[in-house]
Amino acid sequence: MITSTSNQQVKQIIQLQKKSKLREKEQVFIVEGRKMFEEAKSFLKKVYMTEDFYEEHKNIPSYFEEMDYELVTDSVMKSMSDTMTPQGVLALAKMPKYNLEDMVKKDRVTLLLLENLRDPGNLGTIIRTAEGAGVTGIIMSKESVDIFNPKVIRSTMGAIYRMPFIYVENFKKTMEYLQQQKVIIYASHLKGKNDYDEERYGAKTAIIIGNEANGITEETAEMADVLVKIPMEGSVESLNAAVASAILVYEVYRQRRNLKK
Amino acid sequence: MITSTSNQQVKQIIQLQKKSKLREKEQVFIVEGRKMFEEAKSFLKKVYMTEDFYEEHKNIPSYFEEMDYELVTDSVMKSMSDTMTPQGVLALAKMPKYNLEDMVKKDRVTLLLLENLRDPGNLGTIIRTAEGAGVTGIIMSKESVDIFNPKVIRSTMGAIYRMPFIYVENFKKTMEYLQQQKVIIYASHLKGKNDYDEERYGAKTAIIIGNEANGITEETAEMADVLVKIPMEGSVESLNAAVASAILVYEVYRQRRNLKK
Repeated sequence: MITSTSNQQVKQIIQLQKKSKLREKEQVFIVEGRKMFEEAKSFLKKVYMTEDFYEEHKNIPSYFEEMDYELVTDSVMKSMSDTMTPQGVLALAKMPKYNLEDMVKKDRVTLLLLENLRDPGNLGTIIRTAEGAGVTGIIMSKESVDIFNPKVIRSTMGAIYRMPFIYVENFKKTMEYLQQQKVIIYASHLKGKNDYDEERYGAKTAIIIGNEANGITEETAEMADVLVKIPMEGSVESLNAAVASAILVYEVYRQRRNLKK
Repeated sequence: MITSTSNQQVKQIIQLQKKSKLREKEQVFIVEGRKMFEEAKSFLKKVYMTEDFYEEHKNIPSYFEEMDYELVTDSVMKSMSDTMTPQGVLALAKMPKYNLEDMVKKDRVTLLLLENLRDPGNLGTIIRTAEGAGVTGIIMSKESVDIFNPKVIRSTMGAIYRMPFIYVENFKKTMEYLQQQKVIIYASHLKGKNDYDEERYGAKTAIIIGNEANGITEETAEMADVLVKIPMEGSVESLNAAVASAILVYEVYRQRRNLKK
């Protein structure tokens, strides 16, 4: 049992919680809480749990089969945790790797392109909603928030394990590549001619969501195949980025479901 | 100019930022930032600004007409502010008052009923989205998060000034009253028979959104006129409360817009 916060593993976890570059170098990220742990399965490298958590779950064989785990005291758990109220389990997980070619090489493709999205809670919520709407992959500009940020991980509610994603160096070139692969790229923009629900989204659809404060860059808007607008009543100037992406991906999904009927 | 944080007004503002009961007693709330200040208009009671903010805006007459304002030092502003990076303006605003009867007494009614919603960011985002979708009022159970919490105010992006809302003592009785007034109450629920987009929402529609962790209570689900479900792919068990309400209110709004065509 680890009882001291000066233990090397504990120190390493604390650093990994904070430092995006260290996570990248080690190719690992941290997940916390029972649900996130249960769903991590093949991603798990090492698990840390409190005695209470262990006692409560020791009779669940799937929890411990072929798993490298270690007990820690409550205060060690608290120091490793990114949350105010740790749930007694925290794990080191292996970063998954995806590539753009695989994302596009399918009969039906719904991609979300995130340009400079900055808020961790927004990104997590977008990933969770995207899985719900059947989105097949998420592509992010390299300036976007780190997907392995603990807050992002938490707000995905597990979707992080299942949603293919990549960061791209060159957003513009990636858009060109998608267009060559017959993906139609839609962007939500105030200059959009049609409302988002007036478009008919085909089998290869991508939707761009922009930065929370500034929206999509002009260059990106010009490259998009179609600009659509989300109509708004009252004096609302824009919607929250996670809300806008939810409205758009659920409209694509609505149309897909209706086609099947 | 106020230069000390032991000034009585400064102390009062700090307390008002933190204490829901004090806000209720004084019938005031705090708004921060340029945009929130500009839109506050008739709500304003007293405005505090830094010298920099004053110098930048002193030539805009509408900023200062009939307005009670006071200059404060940067450090006083920082101590009064709920944000890490204050924008130089903070104001005391008068709480608006609405009533249920007025909310229902219209030809077209779209209400959001929030049962025990707890997250300030969610509530703010819901109000902002609701205004965009033409929602006409928000009704909250008294256990819901305080709408005048600084985080809620910020995430409304100004919609707080325009969206009628009330807290109700008895959620069940309020539902009964709405039903007597011919409002059809929909609730998003896993037991819903139809998908949310298969319903035809009429002129008097209310939608219930439940608590982030537990959804809507059984009692409330039983009282609702129609349970609908939001279909979800993958292993997603539920959506974020603000996302779920966005999908639902934007579907109601989509149907309304299509009727007009």
